[in-house]
Amino acid sequence: MPDKVIIAVDAMGGDDAPGVVLEGCAAALAADPDLHVVLCGPADVVGPFSVAHERCTAQPAEEVISMGEHPANAVRRKKDSSIVVGCRLVKEGAAQGFFSAGSTGACLAAATLVMGRVRGVSRPALATVIPSPVRPVVLTDIGANADCKPAYLVQFAQMATVYMEKVVGVANPRVALLNIGEEDTKGSAFAQEAHALLREHVPNFAGNGEGCDILPAKFDIFVTDGFTGNVCLKTIEGTSKTLFKALKGIFMNTLFTKLGALALKGGLKGLMERVSPDTYGGAPLLGVRGACIVGHGSSSPLAVKNGVLTTARTVRERVSETIEQTVGAPDTAPEASDPVR
Amino acid sequence: MPDKVIIAVDAMGGDDAPGVVLEGCAAALAADPDLHVVLCGPADVVGPFSVAHERCTAQPAEEVISMGEHPANAVRRKKDSSIVVGCRLVKEGAAQGFFSAGSTGACLAAATLVMGRVRGVSRPALATVIPSPVRPVVLTDIGANADCKPAYLVQFAQMATVYMEKVVGVANPRVALLNIGEEDTKGSAFAQEAHALLREHVPNFAGNGEGCDILPAKFDIFVTDGFTGNVCLKTIEGTSKTLFKALKGIFMNTLFTKLGALALKGGLKGLMERVSPDTYGGAPLLGVRGACIVGHGSSSPLAVKNGVLTTARTVRERVSETIEQTVGAPDTAPEASDPVR
Repeated sequence: MPDKVIIAVDAMGGDDAPGVVLEGCAAALAADPDLHVVLCGPADVVGPFSVAHERCTAQPAEEVISMGEHPANAVRRKKDSSIVVGCRLVKEGAAQGFFSAGSTGACLAAATLVMGRVRGVSRPALATVIPSPVRPVVLTDIGANADCKPAYLVQFAQMATVYMEKVVGVANPRVALLNIGEEDTKGSAFAQEAHALLREHVPNFAGNGEGCDILPAKFDIFVTDGFTGNVCLKTIEGTSKTLFKALKGIFMNTLFTKLGALALKGGLKGLMERVSPDTYGGAPLLGVRGACIVGHGSSSPLAVKNGVLTTARTVRERVSETIEQTVGAPDTAPEASDPVR
Repeated sequence: MPDKVIIAVDAMGGDDAPGVVLEGCAAALAADPDLHVVLCGPADVVGPFSVAHERCTAQPAEEVISMGEHPANAVRRKKDSSIVVGCRLVKEGAAQGFFSAGSTGACLAAATLVMGRVRGVSRPALATVIPSPVRPVVLTDIGANADCKPAYLVQFAQMATVYMEKVVGVANPRVALLNIGEEDTKGSAFAQEAHALLREHVPNFAGNGEGCDILPAKFDIFVTDGFTGNVCLKTIEGTSKTLFKALKGIFMNTLFTKLGALALKGGLKGLMERVSPDTYGGAPLLGVRGACIVGHGSSSPLAVKNGVLTTARTVRERVSETIEQTVGAPDTAPEASDPVR
């Protein structure tokens, strides 16, 4: 659906910013002729890049929020930071979406405070596409809400369904509650209550799924609270990384094993690509007004490129607007009037 | 420490019982000349085996608790089941430890109800040795307590420390709280409270650890509630299994890749063994009077053998008695009088 879309990009987000971000933006602009980028960052960084590239505008923002800072405090204090300025552009209509590979906490705080929540959404949730070798799986919440009420998970499921259908391109996704047993009555008091609410309010809810069901993609979407989701996502990352590292040690052991590994190179490269988080390039914050996608701090130029393109797709597919229509329906909102802390 | 020890074994536990259990018992008896086994199960199964093997006694138990049954109900109703009979032998002093590869829930219920809790322990916790390729890591609770109070985690840490030192053989293990950020102030309200209590009461507490720190063994012990721990453990299992399956597909692709894989066979076999749950053979239920170890339902004969030997080691190393001394100390028990639900 190639129509003009304007994405604000945080030039200073990520471990290797701004170099990696600029390289990723250039690749995204080259890949999508209807994409416009507003690059937010120090004038001496964003100015020259915008001059050198078509469809790119510079938006000076002289402050930077670093990874170590307290997110909410930093967002309140640093009004001229690349993250706050980028979110403000979306709020004011100068851009339609925002991408950053910077501090996840600061992006969540800025997007929620500045861009604002979609009407009817109790809590925006962070989702991610788990790079399963089988097929893509969406996990949410992966950390926006460390403390949840069971009712929040209904909206998490509804929002993830919209994202999975519109952006990942999976029709009629099956939603599972991440739980510690398959049977309906299993789990903590929280999980049992969430199960009952999902059963009642989410037509595509398919029951409980376990940790071992995620990578084999037994369901399309796994919903959980932000604490469990974050532990789970990082456990997948740590497990894959450690196993690949151990494999590499085996491959490099002797000349003989090196030759063996050479024969497998093509296949292994394909597997590494399929399970790489770079393929999807970021985690959408679902439930804010406009698109907001947060990339990994260690994003490569490819991850930034894909993150920016995914943000554009999220805008074009009207994810935010569809979420408003979905969660707004009266019979799908068990606790929509729940006050924000 | 080879002195005589008597272990009750559930002959009917596991997907391939009793065959796999009997094979594992025979291997354990052959490996440890001071081990005695009391085999619990139907007379026609346990009788002939006990006649054929030295240091093995038969204890008829005609009922079987299956995987699908409601654990607490089954334990109350089936007094003559192999699980309940095995736990009763420990209670009565006819055996010192119990091993089963049967229903985890039924073993937890029977051990807690029949064997009883160690004095001062609020909640027994299920622990497991995560087969990391780096070095062994203990994760607890992995599912005995889906709903926890933060104070429980103090005892989980203390009990896991005893097990890690005495049975796994790691001196001065470093304990981490499984959390969603490294900084002390990160996490849910539950995690923040648990962090403060661990800091106060557990001298070997080393701070927060994340999901990505488990398999790389950044800490020796990870403590968490039974919901998060179970999701996390199953996520590790599902991730490893899916990646190994994908690798196998690559290896078997063509004659050329098959030859390549052949060169790597030795190294890959070693890695598979290091990350196999069979190596440790089961999850100890810490905090019950006597030793109780629960094996995976899909345990191999090797896993049963190692499970029985680990149960014997848990008895010989006086884990239960040491836990009583440790959690009994008044300044280490923030909420020891907490009533059982």
